[in-house]
Amino acid sequence: MLAQAVLISLSTQKVKKLLVLEGMSCRYFYRFDMNLADRKTQQPPLASLEKLLTLCAPSMARINDIITARMASDVPLIPKLASHLIAAGGKRMRPMLCVVGALAASKGQSAPASVLQLAAAVEFIHSATLLHDDVIDKSDRRRGRDTANALWGNEASVLVGDFLFARAFELMVETNDLAVLGLLSSASARITEGEVKQMTMAGAPDSSLDDYLSMITNKTATLFSAAAESGARVGGADEALSTAMHHYGLHLGMAFQICDDALDYGADPTHLGKNGGDDFHEGKITLPVILAWQGADDVQRAFWKRTLGDNIIQDGDLDKARELLGRHNAIENALSYARAETVSAIQALSVIPDGPVKAALHEAALFAGKRAY
Amino acid sequence: MLAQAVLISLSTQKVKKLLVLEGMSCRYFYRFDMNLADRKTQQPPLASLEKLLTLCAPSMARINDIITARMASDVPLIPKLASHLIAAGGKRMRPMLCVVGALAASKGQSAPASVLQLAAAVEFIHSATLLHDDVIDKSDRRRGRDTANALWGNEASVLVGDFLFARAFELMVETNDLAVLGLLSSASARITEGEVKQMTMAGAPDSSLDDYLSMITNKTATLFSAAAESGARVGGADEALSTAMHHYGLHLGMAFQICDDALDYGADPTHLGKNGGDDFHEGKITLPVILAWQGADDVQRAFWKRTLGDNIIQDGDLDKARELLGRHNAIENALSYARAETVSAIQALSVIPDGPVKAALHEAALFAGKRAY
Repeated sequence: MLAQAVLISLSTQKVKKLLVLEGMSCRYFYRFDMNLADRKTQQPPLASLEKLLTLCAPSMARINDIITARMASDVPLIPKLASHLIAAGGKRMRPMLCVVGALAASKGQSAPASVLQLAAAVEFIHSATLLHDDVIDKSDRRRGRDTANALWGNEASVLVGDFLFARAFELMVETNDLAVLGLLSSASARITEGEVKQMTMAGAPDSSLDDYLSMITNKTATLFSAAAESGARVGGADEALSTAMHHYGLHLGMAFQICDDALDYGADPTHLGKNGGDDFHEGKITLPVILAWQGADDVQRAFWKRTLGDNIIQDGDLDKARELLGRHNAIENALSYARAETVSAIQALSVIPDGPVKAALHEAALFAGKRAY
Repeated sequence: MLAQAVLISLSTQKVKKLLVLEGMSCRYFYRFDMNLADRKTQQPPLASLEKLLTLCAPSMARINDIITARMASDVPLIPKLASHLIAAGGKRMRPMLCVVGALAASKGQSAPASVLQLAAAVEFIHSATLLHDDVIDKSDRRRGRDTANALWGNEASVLVGDFLFARAFELMVETNDLAVLGLLSSASARITEGEVKQMTMAGAPDSSLDDYLSMITNKTATLFSAAAESGARVGGADEALSTAMHHYGLHLGMAFQICDDALDYGADPTHLGKNGGDDFHEGKITLPVILAWQGADDVQRAFWKRTLGDNIIQDGDLDKARELLGRHNAIENALSYARAETVSAIQALSVIPDGPVKAALHEAALFAGKRAY
């Protein structure tokens, strides 16, 4: 069997990891190049997005300009609130997928102007959902900062989310591509279906694995997929490449979401930029809980029902939840799902010829399942 | 000067009103055909939407089918919540404007299928804004029923609003008309700009008339205008007719909003289907307040600052507000603005040949300023 070896380096952390993928299974080796002075800031090894960031950098600068220009409004609160969220950064994964989809189609030529518009639109859609999510989750921290709803109130966040969503459609209309408009409007509807599903699952730790997977497919993976595919299509990709980018984005999004959900129970809040244990306190049903529930006895199920179901949470319950997840190896098992999605994403790249675009997509897939290895 | 005489009848109330429009001024005569048995349910005389309703009825039945079909989702809460709002009715003014725009273009032929899709999309956009408005205003009554947020919570209302907005764009994309997509996506962005403006004006009774007029133009009149114009364009109208429908919709929307705002201070709650005095309790700044503020002395301004500015409202304050508005004739003066908009709407109809379409639009304009006469 062909073994693919990937050296993942993140220079700022001076950690190197050698990942060996053999078909569907993975083995991994860490190599720590840290000196004694670094030990106090030691972090788990992370894959890097460096290749994707480098490849997309010229386009992303222009996309940021479009984003800034199109947040403008005669009503000053709109750009103020929107830029608070958008300027705070985030990985900009979705617009990068748009760009790299176009680069795959053009074999590395720069992305056309219409793709940059589209990428800005995709980031606006994503930002709109974040603003509304924070209202719904009553979150007060996002990307390491106070949330917009914490600073300006729920009302402003709902309305500015609506504004960004509408602006996204204005931008998309300007690309003059009805097929892509259809793709992204359907994706937008599916995102909200995923969010409503998540809401109706809240407090039900006996939810099924299928419910969870279909929920995160809609909520997260659909926009990754639509971004990658629409970038490819507007960039002139043929059907095979467009479909490959669709599948790549889908699996990448799944890997991202599963990892995020798993890491919420073990996260270092300074790293995630949000509060660890949020999902537990909000009664959100994620993969680790579903897996732990499946193996739980009556006493353990009573714990999950009280905490997640009835939202009666006492001091020490988050630690108890983590202990139960550990007993059932639920975090590790959840991460194995992310690992499988990463592998599927990489498999979708088979139609793309070797080169910097494929290498960047490959690396990004490993990044998505960043702590799955 | 040519005098236009319009007999407005609302048979259920057995009230007839003869309105005489002479240029920009209006005189009016009521003729009450009530017998003694009717007196206990006596209502103020209302203009009618009968002609518009009759003209649009065949299309509206098909639009309702599209609305029902496109509310469907694998997530049952979505159609449940959406249909609670949409099935409760409302006047369906915006989709009717779409239809009648197309009928004006086709000289009375039935509206094409793409216009029906568009009309359903417009109703979805409007419904989405209502769901979000009720969250923002913390309203518990709409169209004579409990609001969706009162029944299912703010979170569900925010998300189902997002779903309807996304579905609207899916429907619009299916019409394959990029010009109309641009029109309605811009209108959607402007609606939210109007809503944010309204929010930032809340609590500031010293807001200017210009602020109020630009706010309601965006918040309300823009969608009326876009609905009428896009129906005309998709229906094949030339530039002159499309522009006429744009202006007609704009002034109609202004008249509707100004009347609603004026009537909130005097309304019979069973008639409006919402709570009277809501605007006062929410600190909303509407035209009557702006007009009363302009003529107020220091003591009166202190009252408005305390109630609307600081939201310190005591028993009897709503009555006191009504008394102050009465003292400055502010409701009547506000309604004179609605009257002017009605006249402008009717003037915009000059390019349309006489016939049932024009008559229906004429009658609807009078209805929009329904208590302005």
